Amino acid sequence: MSDAAKNPLFERMALIGAGLIGSSLARVAKRDHLVRHIAVCARTQETLDKALGLGFADSVSLNPAEAVRDADLVVLCTPLGLYGEIAKTMAPGLKPGAIVSDVGSCKETMFRDVRPHLPDGVHMVPAHPVAGTEHSGPEAGFAELFEGRWCVLTPADDADAGAVERVAELWRQCKMTVEIMDAAHHDRVMAITSHLPHLISYTIVGTANDLEDDLKKEVFKFSAGGFRDFTRIAASDPVMWRDIFLKNRDAVLEILGRFTEDLAALQRAIRRGEGEALEDHFTRTRDIRRGVIDAKQD
Amino acid sequence: MSDAAKNPLFERMALIGAGLIGSSLARVAKRDHLVRHIAVCARTQETLDKALGLGFADSVSLNPAEAVRDADLVVLCTPLGLYGEIAKTMAPGLKPGAIVSDVGSCKETMFRDVRPHLPDGVHMVPAHPVAGTEHSGPEAGFAELFEGRWCVLTPADDADAGAVERVAELWRQCKMTVEIMDAAHHDRVMAITSHLPHLISYTIVGTANDLEDDLKKEVFKFSAGGFRDFTRIAASDPVMWRDIFLKNRDAVLEILGRFTEDLAALQRAIRRGEGEALEDHFTRTRDIRRGVIDAKQD
Repeated sequence: MSDAAKNPLFERMALIGAGLIGSSLARVAKRDHLVRHIAVCARTQETLDKALGLGFADSVSLNPAEAVRDADLVVLCTPLGLYGEIAKTMAPGLKPGAIVSDVGSCKETMFRDVRPHLPDGVHMVPAHPVAGTEHSGPEAGFAELFEGRWCVLTPADDADAGAVERVAELWRQCKMTVEIMDAAHHDRVMAITSHLPHLISYTIVGTANDLEDDLKKEVFKFSAGGFRDFTRIAASDPVMWRDIFLKNRDAVLEILGRFTEDLAALQRAIRRGEGEALEDHFTRTRDIRRGVIDAKQD
Repeated sequence: MSDAAKNPLFERMALIGAGLIGSSLARVAKRDHLVRHIAVCARTQETLDKALGLGFADSVSLNPAEAVRDADLVVLCTPLGLYGEIAKTMAPGLKPGAIVSDVGSCKETMFRDVRPHLPDGVHMVPAHPVAGTEHSGPEAGFAELFEGRWCVLTPADDADAGAVERVAELWRQCKMTVEIMDAAHHDRVMAITSHLPHLISYTIVGTANDLEDDLKKEVFKFSAGGFRDFTRIAASDPVMWRDIFLKNRDAVLEILGRFTEDLAALQRAIRRGEGEALEDHFTRTRDIRRGVIDAKQD
């Protein structure tokens, strides 16, 4: 028996939601014996049956309060829009000293929608493993999803240091690099690196879909010229992304404002035939690619 | 000796420009003996030396008129902005019956900037192999670049059928699927599938670069959330793309107008908290992804 199996990080982990991220976390936890028991909660029996069938759940429940009972770690893995209702429903089942965490892409939500419902003596440690694919659902998960990626924790200033460290260690065991950040700052960073790219991808793919039929057919055919990358991003889960834009509204609108100003400037340069302005801009962006490669994110 | 070596498609092919596309074409032509002699023309001796060193040029010249002499196929592989000047300069060297083609991403340019300079008895067959990477230069080319992709030919209605077929066969030998299309229609299709995605990527990467330093550093770090794909696209050759936007201005501005309207509608939905409108839009775009996969472009 390995050390991990003798001394798991948590005795009982409750996952509320079992989609791409939740089921991937469960798969790592199971494979590497990071927790002794995994309780999975979902909204449909169908999802619970899949969780059991895929072998990553030890127990299942449709009721959050029941799922979190005796859990020393609770991880919200649902779309952000459900956080408030789930927090309220599960609160009576939380045991003193339990840690409540999540995997969402917007972190101020945890403070706005979840914290008000948590009983005293329960620790909140918001987390965002920055990893994903365009696929969703319990079958889409895989244990290697997190490897080599960042996980951002955004604990409050007065958070329990031991609780933060235990959550950090869980994600380190998933082979992520853990970073601590202020929630509002996190939400701004994600607005530019993830939320705006998704919004733009959703937009351009929609624009293409509204074209006349003869053009539209060819857009698929010739998608290799750049469009294809956008269709992949725009295939991400619609409900998850609806909630991200609603919950991170201010940061998204702020960065979107900057983007549309910059796009208008390039549009003007094209209309006026200002080749030098275009070339200067395109040369600068090429250098940024080197920054991404240097940061080992590609 | 293989059939191809005994009977190459062309006796002498002149490549004007030897970047990613030109050098890739030369590599296939050499490897598979598609032409007997490859003459390469470039603006600098450095590029010519590379073409010789990399082994894909049989002869080199800094002078287009000299490079095209005796060629039965001339392929322009330079940024679009040089087409007019090159056509004018090389015209005196073109032999009767020669075919003048290209590999550019905008096809009306061939009719506007090249055709007026061509002597009678020279055939013009514009071509666009829809393939590429974000890398550029003679070293970036590779013989497999074109495999499984589309090549669009946009000959004039009165083009010589035999000349069109010979160019089509060259690209088929590069393992591309050849499609014949009207030049203006091609330029509209590319405006949405390639030019707009590039413009947007250049914009968003520039927007990120103008952020405060502390945010900017983290944009690289957390680029895996979607931004990374944009940085790859925005690393494409600045001069090539400057010319594409200048030469395909009208089609790009038209599709950009549609895009910005659609983006404004989503922005409004986010500001007003209209979750249903967002979810509907995101669900539609997800279906489009299936269209791209069905079209075997991913």
